[in-house]
Amino acid sequence: MRVIKGHGTENDFVVVPDPDGELDLPPRLVAALCDRRAGLGGDGVIRAVRTAKVAEVAHLAGEAEWFMDYRNADGSVAEMCGNGVRVLARYLAAFAHVDPADPLPVATRGGVRQVRFEPDGQITVGMGRPELLAAPVRVTTEAGSWDAVGLHIPNPHAVAFVDDVTAAGELLAVPAVEPPGAFPQGVNVEFVERRGPGAIALRVHERGVGETRSCGTGVAAAAVVAARAAGEAAPARWTVDVPGGRLAVTLLADGEVELTGPAVLVATAEVEEAWLTAALAGAGPAA
Amino acid sequence: MRVIKGHGTENDFVVVPDPDGELDLPPRLVAALCDRRAGLGGDGVIRAVRTAKVAEVAHLAGEAEWFMDYRNADGSVAEMCGNGVRVLARYLAAFAHVDPADPLPVATRGGVRQVRFEPDGQITVGMGRPELLAAPVRVTTEAGSWDAVGLHIPNPHAVAFVDDVTAAGELLAVPAVEPPGAFPQGVNVEFVERRGPGAIALRVHERGVGETRSCGTGVAAAAVVAARAAGEAAPARWTVDVPGGRLAVTLLADGEVELTGPAVLVATAEVEEAWLTAALAGAGPAA
Repeated sequence: MRVIKGHGTENDFVVVPDPDGELDLPPRLVAALCDRRAGLGGDGVIRAVRTAKVAEVAHLAGEAEWFMDYRNADGSVAEMCGNGVRVLARYLAAFAHVDPADPLPVATRGGVRQVRFEPDGQITVGMGRPELLAAPVRVTTEAGSWDAVGLHIPNPHAVAFVDDVTAAGELLAVPAVEPPGAFPQGVNVEFVERRGPGAIALRVHERGVGETRSCGTGVAAAAVVAARAAGEAAPARWTVDVPGGRLAVTLLADGEVELTGPAVLVATAEVEEAWLTAALAGAGPAA
Repeated sequence: MRVIKGHGTENDFVVVPDPDGELDLPPRLVAALCDRRAGLGGDGVIRAVRTAKVAEVAHLAGEAEWFMDYRNADGSVAEMCGNGVRVLARYLAAFAHVDPADPLPVATRGGVRQVRFEPDGQITVGMGRPELLAAPVRVTTEAGSWDAVGLHIPNPHAVAFVDDVTAAGELLAVPAVEPPGAFPQGVNVEFVERRGPGAIALRVHERGVGETRSCGTGVAAAAVVAARAAGEAAPARWTVDVPGGRLAVTLLADGEVELTGPAVLVATAEVEEAWLTAALAGAGPAA
């Protein structure tokens, strides 16, 4: 079994090539691959498979040759990952004859995303249109309490502006968001510091995970809220610093949000047979 | 550049094959390889090189063909690693024509260690003879304060018995060891729970690192202290459970301590050229 380790702003993934849809990826194998000490390590697994070969998305095969079958580190499926789709695109260009001169539509469980390779080597992904909550929400940690803006893009976020993202971030482990019921399925929280015109820095607490080095949808959400707060003079292009690096967000006139950033392939790995057998059996090898 | 990822009780390593001593391993490359998100991830790097090819240990070439050139995750050199030497041995048997039927002496910066492959697939390593401090020490965390035994094997340890290793471990982040000056170069602290005759469980706080999943010398130190506390009827063979798995310690009549445990090879990885170039330049790739 051959896989590729890669990351985008230190959001890292194990890409599993499966062009013809022949692989079974049971949750315990995904979890074993993502294990940072007993496996290869990653925030998730991306199976790179032709859209036509996967029943649940085969109807998108006319729009996108490749499907990003994204799995969280616990083995559960997910719709999309803004950093992961760039890593998938980089992999496809390096290993699957995708021409970086052309636009690359990618099928996901959240629909088809448009990807393009920038001349400077960065990769841009269409993130869709945000839906803002009408009423403000409030974010509280042991460090303080802030008014925040709630929105879906399409997963839920609460964006709070703080004076110093470093200080606020120290207590990221336990943000509470009110009112109760504002986000029935939980919420990701971004603490955002203004750094200048069109520039912000943020730290993010992902629901069910804790603080992460980067979150693609969180970066997009924060730029959307920062632009609204800046009013009519707001720039369309935002630079967003996260602990894992720097991303850019472009707000198009039609409401679409684009995320641009790096994608790095680290290594191609051939998994050991004995390790794979043990992982599929659901236990570490005895020796 | 081809490397192998492996682990022993979830103490994980990047093995770098370099039989003829041709590789330069600058600290920034070691740190980049060990980075768990932007690299392959590991507690350290083990360069597998013939002893005769390394000036600092070439005088040991008559005793041991292979040298374990161990580097900490920050790129600094280290003498030995009880879990790492098993992973190196597993690598040598799988990839370097070492016959597991024979004893395998391994040169380290701490001298030559004797390794043997057990019939059940586990690997045993000679850990040397412990030197106990004459006076007791005291370990204090926010959870409590305990008398402890200090010893070197050869790195420094303080071993404290607790009623419930799970509870004590919750405050492992800040153990203080008294009297001041007992361990001028810092100390690793083991919190040990008795589980039955010849059986203990422990959690370990490694100096400069924090809590880890396993520590080979810490496991050896804890068994030595547990055997002394058990008196003349103490068994020679101890089972030691750590968060990352199970190890065994054998106390030989001559004072030598042997550590036995698993060693798992996870994958062989070919590092991407662009990643390697960026790592050697001391910065992540721009894209």
